[in-house]
Amino acid sequence: MELGTRNTQPVTRNAYLATRNAERQGERMNYCSNCGDTVKFSTPTGDDRPRYLCESCGTIHYENPKMVVGCIPEKDRKILLCRRAIEPQSGKWTLPAGYLENGETVAQGAQRETIEEAGANIQILGPYALFNIRYVNQIYLMFRARLIDENFKAGSESTEVRLFLEEDIPWDRIAFTVIEKSLRLYFKDRPTGSYPFYIGDIQSKKK
Amino acid sequence: MELGTRNTQPVTRNAYLATRNAERQGERMNYCSNCGDTVKFSTPTGDDRPRYLCESCGTIHYENPKMVVGCIPEKDRKILLCRRAIEPQSGKWTLPAGYLENGETVAQGAQRETIEEAGANIQILGPYALFNIRYVNQIYLMFRARLIDENFKAGSESTEVRLFLEEDIPWDRIAFTVIEKSLRLYFKDRPTGSYPFYIGDIQSKKK
Repeated sequence: MELGTRNTQPVTRNAYLATRNAERQGERMNYCSNCGDTVKFSTPTGDDRPRYLCESCGTIHYENPKMVVGCIPEKDRKILLCRRAIEPQSGKWTLPAGYLENGETVAQGAQRETIEEAGANIQILGPYALFNIRYVNQIYLMFRARLIDENFKAGSESTEVRLFLEEDIPWDRIAFTVIEKSLRLYFKDRPTGSYPFYIGDIQSKKK
Repeated sequence: MELGTRNTQPVTRNAYLATRNAERQGERMNYCSNCGDTVKFSTPTGDDRPRYLCESCGTIHYENPKMVVGCIPEKDRKILLCRRAIEPQSGKWTLPAGYLENGETVAQGAQRETIEEAGANIQILGPYALFNIRYVNQIYLMFRARLIDENFKAGSESTEVRLFLEEDIPWDRIAFTVIEKSLRLYFKDRPTGSYPFYIGDIQSKKK
């Protein structure tokens, strides 16, 4: 991950084609959700990449990345973490975050996830970091947040919710790279009192 | 739209339920894309909102907002706009923008769309504004960009691509509210030389 990548290299008309072969991973589709016939995976006329398409009814089933929204809730210098009750990474610690739902804003989604996973009342302070996780087609958007009170309580996806001072963060038991990066950025910026908006990439560990 | 909403109101555990009834609009699904049986639209066990689900194979078909990525390409104080060759808003002017594809970063997506729609070579300078467009389940992310040269050329979705000085922007023929808002923000910030990252909402005109 390159943090603080506010500038990227110039990309010429031809050079961008190189990005076309980036790893893509969508949901497997066997049948057309519109008419029920079988679909095939090939490049539609006028398009430049393969899609699931239905030759019976003509539907092209586009697949796009999903947004995950979450936050870094802070109170009295302490950060709220949730211990995961579910796979993947069950038993490890994470920040409240989850898929953005239809019909909500990114801030509402982050608040909803914080309530669902940690039963916590927060105030969103501002957008903080966006991470491209291309190998799973996810875009993470993390907000800074103020934890309003200590009436939090583990939701069904957590076994435990707890406040941690920076020096007590269980770095060797953080669930996901994107969460660790968010926290490290945050602790780097916090002493300055200034939180620029970051964009970074999370690479697959398999590579 | 409220611009510059870096702060939101505190949301308590119960109050967030009010957001649950926000307008949601997904793609209609008749058949399970996994097994081909008919789906029903109801709330899965343990969930809190209706989804398309298949009782034959147990698949829950989640639907989530899509990201649209684009940019504001500038060269010599002029902004590159594209005249739309396709509906909706055919004949009106827009900034290069389109759906983020699987396997690409948000910046790569914005660059790709700029090449596809305007044949233009740009350098992404930084993220600039995010807009929630809840009534169509879209999240727009606009970047600032430097147009590298004037070798641009209308792509298949544009009839014309042209550079405009601020005073020449065809405000009455801009295709979408989100594009107009992005441009107005940009011209407001440009004299200061400082471009904070904005989050705003675009409301349906029908309401």
